[in-house]
Amino acid sequence: MSTDPHLTPPAGLAPIAPVDPAPRRSPAEEARTLVHATNEAALATLSDGGDPWASLVTYGPLPDGAPVLLVSRLAEHGRNLARDPRASVVIDDAAPGDVLGRGRVTLAGRAEAPAGTARDTALAAHCDNVPGADYYAGFGDFTVWVLRVERVRWVGGFGRMNSATAEEYAAAEADPTALAAAGAIEHLNDDHADALLLMAQKLGGHPDATEAICTAIDRHGIDLRVITPRGKGETRVGFAGSVTRPDGLRAATVELTRRARG
Amino acid sequence: MSTDPHLTPPAGLAPIAPVDPAPRRSPAEEARTLVHATNEAALATLSDGGDPWASLVTYGPLPDGAPVLLVSRLAEHGRNLARDPRASVVIDDAAPGDVLGRGRVTLAGRAEAPAGTARDTALAAHCDNVPGADYYAGFGDFTVWVLRVERVRWVGGFGRMNSATAEEYAAAEADPTALAAAGAIEHLNDDHADALLLMAQKLGGHPDATEAICTAIDRHGIDLRVITPRGKGETRVGFAGSVTRPDGLRAATVELTRRARG
Repeated sequence: MSTDPHLTPPAGLAPIAPVDPAPRRSPAEEARTLVHATNEAALATLSDGGDPWASLVTYGPLPDGAPVLLVSRLAEHGRNLARDPRASVVIDDAAPGDVLGRGRVTLAGRAEAPAGTARDTALAAHCDNVPGADYYAGFGDFTVWVLRVERVRWVGGFGRMNSATAEEYAAAEADPTALAAAGAIEHLNDDHADALLLMAQKLGGHPDATEAICTAIDRHGIDLRVITPRGKGETRVGFAGSVTRPDGLRAATVELTRRARG
Repeated sequence: MSTDPHLTPPAGLAPIAPVDPAPRRSPAEEARTLVHATNEAALATLSDGGDPWASLVTYGPLPDGAPVLLVSRLAEHGRNLARDPRASVVIDDAAPGDVLGRGRVTLAGRAEAPAGTARDTALAAHCDNVPGADYYAGFGDFTVWVLRVERVRWVGGFGRMNSATAEEYAAAEADPTALAAAGAIEHLNDDHADALLLMAQKLGGHPDATEAICTAIDRHGIDLRVITPRGKGETRVGFAGSVTRPDGLRAATVELTRRARG
């Protein structure tokens, strides 16, 4: 994974005990997670003459993550797509604070206007994700466009970024626990500081940790910030398996705690 | 002003008494107001091969409204600008709810990398509007870009949209009362319903109004939704002059109330 050369790596305190491998979401998984979490994007198309044109759109993703747009040919971006199918969208996680600290992904490719049942399927994917969109679908000047994704560039905030291939993106799954993560982090830090500390000590490579704070959680594991007499550091502990259900973080965390208690 | 052909005009209840002309912000003024209210934009640039590339950036505006970007040549959008200066940004008002209901503006033109004191001025405009940006400015791979605006397309939400020329945009002023508007609307509706009703009756062309709610306020006047025995409608009452100070809405509204009381 490439990293931002302007940032010193986070703390970087070396573990002093073995740490089990703790997988992270792949860049493709990160991209899919962002794309499936919202319905708003900024669209880049080509105006007459080939100039780039930025606009706002709503979208709904197909099962392979291709965003489906519904735009009017009366609007510049609609005319642009009809003239030249090349397009990209940038989608962010809408986290508060500095935009450059947000997770975001650019999907670039070509827009296709499907016909027949493919259009019906695409339109349904759009309307399922955009309340009220069916109102516009009835107007004759609106076109359903599927952005066939050819390039994927994910930025996870400061210092985390990578590309994914179109195949990796199409095959990846959105993290089903993404919506539950913020609540889980708060709950763990508020009510289970002892369990987090035990995880850092027994599984995270810092047996001398005196404090551990959950900074992130996802279907694969938990990121911890640890305080030790040697300084501050970060570590990650992995779940026994990847969580497959939106409500699965609790069971996975309980299993992790049990494992830490040994 | 062109309007969205898919929407019936708001209520459209005709006034039954004379209404004084009540100016609105021009499209250029709307655009400047949006641009000066935030520091986040989506950028469209041209990738190698001329494909459009959407990304996120921060910016600060110069006095003529030209957005100043500070981007790394290590990032795709930075390489794109260095190869082809054509670019556009879309900036929105971050209002909650449907993205297509938001105010937004696309500024399209060419990015220039200023040198000498012009670079210093541009960089200061960026850093004044983007907390922490001075940290990045010191890295050698970052370039200061000024987007010289050639085209302006403003969309005010559903059914309000228009273009402005580059000259109109550069000459226009951001509404100095924009940040105070939400608070003023709440205050007027909560504590001065009687004054709003009087404005609708005496100045807004609906002498039979039984209720008036402020839906928007800006440096030039107040938008009112009115209820009358004839139905619901909308009207606008203009201030005696355009407000020039961020805290000037109160005095302008007091004057309007006095005038309504006649």
